[in-house]
Amino acid sequence: MLDRIRIVLIGTSHPGNIGGTARAMHNMGLSDLALVAPRCKAITADSVSRASGADRLVHDARVVASLEQAVADCTLVVGASARSRTLPWPMITPRQLGSQLPEELADPEAHVALVFGREDSGLTNAELQRCHAHVHIPTNPDFSSLNLAAAVQVLAYECRLAWLEGRPSDADTASASALASHAELEHYFAHLERTLIDIGFHDPATPRQLMARLRRFTLRARPERMELNILRGILTATQQQAERATGDDGTP
Amino acid sequence: MLDRIRIVLIGTSHPGNIGGTARAMHNMGLSDLALVAPRCKAITADSVSRASGADRLVHDARVVASLEQAVADCTLVVGASARSRTLPWPMITPRQLGSQLPEELADPEAHVALVFGREDSGLTNAELQRCHAHVHIPTNPDFSSLNLAAAVQVLAYECRLAWLEGRPSDADTASASALASHAELEHYFAHLERTLIDIGFHDPATPRQLMARLRRFTLRARPERMELNILRGILTATQQQAERATGDDGTP
Repeated sequence: MLDRIRIVLIGTSHPGNIGGTARAMHNMGLSDLALVAPRCKAITADSVSRASGADRLVHDARVVASLEQAVADCTLVVGASARSRTLPWPMITPRQLGSQLPEELADPEAHVALVFGREDSGLTNAELQRCHAHVHIPTNPDFSSLNLAAAVQVLAYECRLAWLEGRPSDADTASASALASHAELEHYFAHLERTLIDIGFHDPATPRQLMARLRRFTLRARPERMELNILRGILTATQQQAERATGDDGTP
Repeated sequence: MLDRIRIVLIGTSHPGNIGGTARAMHNMGLSDLALVAPRCKAITADSVSRASGADRLVHDARVVASLEQAVADCTLVVGASARSRTLPWPMITPRQLGSQLPEELADPEAHVALVFGREDSGLTNAELQRCHAHVHIPTNPDFSSLNLAAAVQVLAYECRLAWLEGRPSDADTASASALASHAELEHYFAHLERTLIDIGFHDPATPRQLMARLRRFTLRARPERMELNILRGILTATQQQAERATGDDGTP
């Protein structure tokens, strides 16, 4: 189970935090590290010293340009986030995250990504809206910003406890059937947005959080691959109607 | 409760770990730090930088010569320890520690000390035998030595969770907003089915469980009233396209 939990660091600027993250991961039995557009070198004296023997994870880390590339194959993407955002998103505690993991990872094809943002500014709203849920580590409201490696340590600790305690139960049939991957979901959202523009319902110039609300609704349902195929079929049929309607418009 | 939990570091040799400990403590709402015979200066550029704004705790830390002096007033002393020692001692998990704290600290005079040993050698047997119990953070047996500040972070996190327990959690913000009623959902499903017929995607004569699958998907998301209104707006826009497309069809 632990080998299918990926830690994703976005735009990290301090090598020491990458090393500290590697040590925290290895201490808890995690090994899959992805670095998205790091703002510093991953391998430095500081990162190797903070890794304290776990620097292999930094050497093996996948470095990619975008969050998409880091989580495309993941069936559950959870973003580490401070509390309230303009658009509330499903928010879970680290303990709730842990309790969900055994079932989330019951399917041997399933992968979970835990996404951590920049030391200074965290995750952008666009990044947060690509997550199924947000996890918030309860902190002192007067001093809430955790060190990056410390935040990874807490979530990795909950992952390990869940692995030590958890037993996959096949009670939940929904999570048993094949869930859509992040990439499949993003293709659907792109198709949905194109279609809403085609039928004149959505104006990208004045989005009014429309796509964000539709993302939140859809991600909450944890769509199965087959359900996504049905929805995309509906979008295609809708686009055909729009083409015929506007196509006829084109004539004088 | 949190103000009566003391973090005790014995023989620390790296200032950065003292600063990291202060940050982890302040993040979790702890403030009482004691340093026993530190092997380094507590206030250095490295410790202040790792404290990242929590260096007040380092300045306020009590520096003493012996464990006795650091925990004399404590009613419960728990030592952070790797597992098996020559002489087995009451061993608790971090979670068990947290669950005991409210009762341990019910008496307003009570104080709890969490004792952490040296980076290289941990706590001596003599120090461990001055503890009521030992707490072990479960780790990867192949890489079990946690960074000192990371170990403090995990136990301080469990302390905070124990303190927060019983309060209404503000996780799961989504479910707070108004859910659609059964009647509203049925109106939506009727509207959805009409629209799917209008665009030629659904044939009631050969339904292929289409509506059942769309119901299951939608109900799983527990739609909010506002989300359902957006979806119905999309259906209406889709129907308008279909009318224009087929309306033109009607002409000879």
